Amino acid sequence: MEAPIITLTTDFGYKDYFVGSMKGVILGINPEARIVDISHEVDPQDVDAAAYLIKSSYHYFPAGTIHVVVVDPGVGSPRKPILVVGKRDYFVGPDNGVFSYIYSEIDSLKIIHITSKEYFLKDTWRMGETYSGELGSTFHGREIFAPVAAWLSKGIDPANFGGEIQNPVRLPLAEPRPITSPSGQRALEGRVIYIDRFGNLITNITRLHLQVLSPSPKEGTFRINLKGRTFEIKRYYAEGIRGKPVALVNSCGHLEVFIYLGNAHEKLEAAIGDPILLTTD
Amino acid sequence: MEAPIITLTTDFGYKDYFVGSMKGVILGINPEARIVDISHEVDPQDVDAAAYLIKSSYHYFPAGTIHVVVVDPGVGSPRKPILVVGKRDYFVGPDNGVFSYIYSEIDSLKIIHITSKEYFLKDTWRMGETYSGELGSTFHGREIFAPVAAWLSKGIDPANFGGEIQNPVRLPLAEPRPITSPSGQRALEGRVIYIDRFGNLITNITRLHLQVLSPSPKEGTFRINLKGRTFEIKRYYAEGIRGKPVALVNSCGHLEVFIYLGNAHEKLEAAIGDPILLTTD
Amino acid sequence: MEAPIITLTTDFGYKDYFVGSMKGVILGINPEARIVDISHEVDPQDVDAAAYLIKSSYHYFPAGTIHVVVVDPGVGSPRKPILVVGKRDYFVGPDNGVFSYIYSEIDSLKIIHITSKEYFLKDTWRMGETYSGELGSTFHGREIFAPVAAWLSKGIDPANFGGEIQNPVRLPLAEPRPITSPSGQRALEGRVIYIDRFGNLITNITRLHLQVLSPSPKEGTFRINLKGRTFEIKRYYAEGIRGKPVALVNSCGHLEVFIYLGNAHEKLEAAIGDPILLTTD
Repeated sequence: MEAPIITLTTDFGYKDYFVGSMKGVILGINPEARIVDISHEVDPQDVDAAAYLIKSSYHYFPAGTIHVVVVDPGVGSPRKPILVVGKRDYFVGPDNGVFSYIYSEIDSLKIIHITSKEYFLKDTWRMGETYSGELGSTFHGREIFAPVAAWLSKGIDPANFGGEIQNPVRLPLAEPRPITSPSGQRALEGRVIYIDRFGNLITNITRLHLQVLSPSPKEGTFRINLKGRTFEIKRYYAEGIRGKPVALVNSCGHLEVFIYLGNAHEKLEAAIGDPILLTTD
Repeated sequence: MEAPIITLTTDFGYKDYFVGSMKGVILGINPEARIVDISHEVDPQDVDAAAYLIKSSYHYFPAGTIHVVVVDPGVGSPRKPILVVGKRDYFVGPDNGVFSYIYSEIDSLKIIHITSKEYFLKDTWRMGETYSGELGSTFHGREIFAPVAAWLSKGIDPANFGGEIQNPVRLPLAEPRPITSPSGQRALEGRVIYIDRFGNLITNITRLHLQVLSPSPKEGTFRINLKGRTFEIKRYYAEGIRGKPVALVNSCGHLEVFIYLGNAHEKLEAAIGDPILLTTD
Repeated sequence: MEAPIITLTTDFGYKDYFVGSMKGVILGINPEARIVDISHEVDPQDVDAAAYLIKSSYHYFPAGTIHVVVVDPGVGSPRKPILVVGKRDYFVGPDNGVFSYIYSEIDSLKIIHITSKEYFLKDTWRMGETYSGELGSTFHGREIFAPVAAWLSKGIDPANFGGEIQNPVRLPLAEPRPITSPSGQRALEGRVIYIDRFGNLITNITRLHLQVLSPSPKEGTFRINLKGRTFEIKRYYAEGIRGKPVALVNSCGHLEVFIYLGNAHEKLEAAIGDPILLTTD
C-alpha cells in the first residue's frame, strides 16, 4: 500500500481541536498518509446520518482507502472499537451500527474487534488517567481509531488488531414497507432519512425499489405523496418549477424530494422519519 | 506537471458527502494530486459570490494550478461544462458567469466546451440512470468537473476535452458608475458586492478606480457615503475607531467598509447591492 | 526536514477566500509542505480560544511541525509578528498572547521578532499599497505568517527571520485561585475558559491541580460547584446520567462540566468566565 488515503467522518465540527489532533496522530505514525475529510458536521451523536454519509462516499475512493468514522455516543462505555475489512475498503470506528449499510454492500466482509493496545496512541494512558489514577479516556478518535487507521495504512495485517466477531450492531435500517394502494396497486411506504444542506429530503426508497415496483416505467408512471401533497419524479433539479416540490432519484440512487432553487425542508415543514408514499396509479 | 494542485470552490457545504466524494474521484484518477479547499460555504447557488472568491484566490497559487468551481444552479440543464485555459492557470466549472472576472484578467485565454465523455466518471451513467432508464445526473461536480480536473492534472491536453467556444456567459459585473457630485466634481456610484465573515462590506470600487478619480490623493481626499453616512478611508483595520464605520482598500484591492472590532453588516443594516458613493469633495 | 507539516489555526472561517489563499502562498514557496487545518472557526478575534486550541493540539503532531496561528485583532498596528522556536515545535503568529500556554510548556524556548521582508509575500507591497501610495496591508496571514512558515519548512534558519526578543505578550492565563472552603478545607476557584461544539464547559482546573489538592483521592473525594449546582467527577462521558450535569477530566487534562447526551452550556446557561468551585469536603 503506497501513499494510502485515510478519510475522516465525525461529529466533532470544525471549531474545536479534535479533528486536528487526530490528523497529527495519523501523520506522526504514517507521514505518507493522505487524509481526506468527508464531513465533521454530522449532527452530534447522529449515528444514522453518519451511516448515510459513509455509504454515499466510500465507493468513490480508490481501492485500499481506510475510512474512519467517529460518531460515538457510547465512548468510554463497553461498546467495541471495530475494524471492518472488505475486498477493497477498510472501515474503522465504533460498533454502534454506523457501518450498517456497508455490511450489506461489500464482499468478503470480516469484522475485527480492536483490542491490541500496542497500536493505540502511546500517551493515551498518560492523557487518559482519571483523577483517581485509573485508566480511562474520552477521546477514542484520537487514541484508538486514528492510530489504528495509521498503522493499518502502514501495512499492519488486520488480524493483528484483534479477533474476529460475527454479529456487529446494526441500525434498524428503515427499509421502505410494501403496501397496497387504495386502488389495489402495489405501493411503497418509505421514510425521510436525511436532510441535506440544500433542504432536499432524502428517502430510503432507492432506484432498485422503483425498478421492482415498475420494471419499464414511462413518464408519469410514479407518484409520490409526502405530507398530503403529490409530486412527480423529474430527472434533473433544473427540470423543477421554481417553488414547486418535485422528486428525483439523486446522485446516490435515493429518491429525494426537492424544490428547484428553493428549500423543500422549510417549505414542506418535513422532518427525519416523515412517511413518503410511492404509488404507480 | 508534477504533484499538481487542484483547488475546490463550491456551495456544497461541509455537512454532506458531496465534497468528500469529489476528492475520492480525483485521487482515484491522480493519486499525486494535492487538493486544496478554497471554500465550500458559498451561499447555495450564489454565482456572484463564487466569482468574487475565485478571483480573490487564484493568483496566489503556483503556475499550473487547476481551479474547480461548482456553484451551478443549472446542473442538468443545457448550460455547458467548460475548461478555461490561461497562461498559468486552469479553471473548470459551469458556463454560468462564475469565471467572469477571470476573462478580463488572464492572458492567452482559451475556453473549451467539455464534451469528451471518456474523461467523465466511469459510473456516471450507472449512477445517473433515471427511473426510466435514460441517462441523467444531478452531480456534475463529481461526475464531470472532478474527473476532468484530475485528468488535466495528469497532463491530458486541454484540446482533448472538447472544442473551443468564443462567447462564455458573463455576469453583469456591476462596474461602478461615473457620476457628477452635487458640487460638480467627478464621483463614482459603486455597489456592495460581497459581505465577509467579519461583516465587512466589500464594494466593486477598486484601487484602480481611486487612482483614476484622483491620481495623487492626500489624507482626506476621498469621502465615502453609504446609507446616508459618510466615512473616511483608512489604511489599516486597527486605525479604525471602535464602533465607528470607516473604509479601506482591502487585501484584494477592493474598497471595503468596516467597523474596527465590530460588524459593519449588522450595524449599518447593509445588503448586497446597496449603492455606495465615492466623492473627492 | 522532509515533507514538513504546517498547521493552520485562524478566525477566518470557511466561507471566505482567506485560508485558501494562505495555502496557495505556502505551496507556491514549498510544494512539499503538507498543510493541516486545526480550526478556522475560532470566534472572530478571540485570542483566548485560539490559545486553548493550539495548546490542546500541538503535542500530537510530529517533531518539526510548524504551527501558524492567525487570530489577530491588531493586524496593521505595531504588534510584532513572531516565530516561537521550541525543541521540537515551531509557532508562527502575532505577539498578542496567543502562544501564552506554549511559553510555559516547551523547552529551549526562543522567540524571534520577524522583520526580514525578503521572506514576506513578494507582492505584499503591490497588494498592500494604500490609496495614497504608501505601503500597508491588512492580511498578514497571507503576506507574512504563511510565507515565513513556508520558508521555515524549507530549512531557513530561524535566526534569519529577525532578532530574538525576551518578553512576549502573555494572556492573563486565569490560573485557578486557591481558597479555603466554608469548612476550612483547601479548595480552588477556577473559571470556565472554553465552550466546545458539544456545549461542554472547559475550565482552567487541570489534573495537576486535582493531584495537588488531594494526592490520593477516592471516588467522591472531589465536589464541583457551578452556578449554585453541585456535581461529581466521572471518568467517562457515558457514565453520566442523561440530563444531569457531571464533571470529568477531559482528554486534554482539563476539568470539564458536561451533560451526557445533552448540552451543559444551554442547560446551565453558563458562559466563559463563570466561576467554578472545587472542594474536597
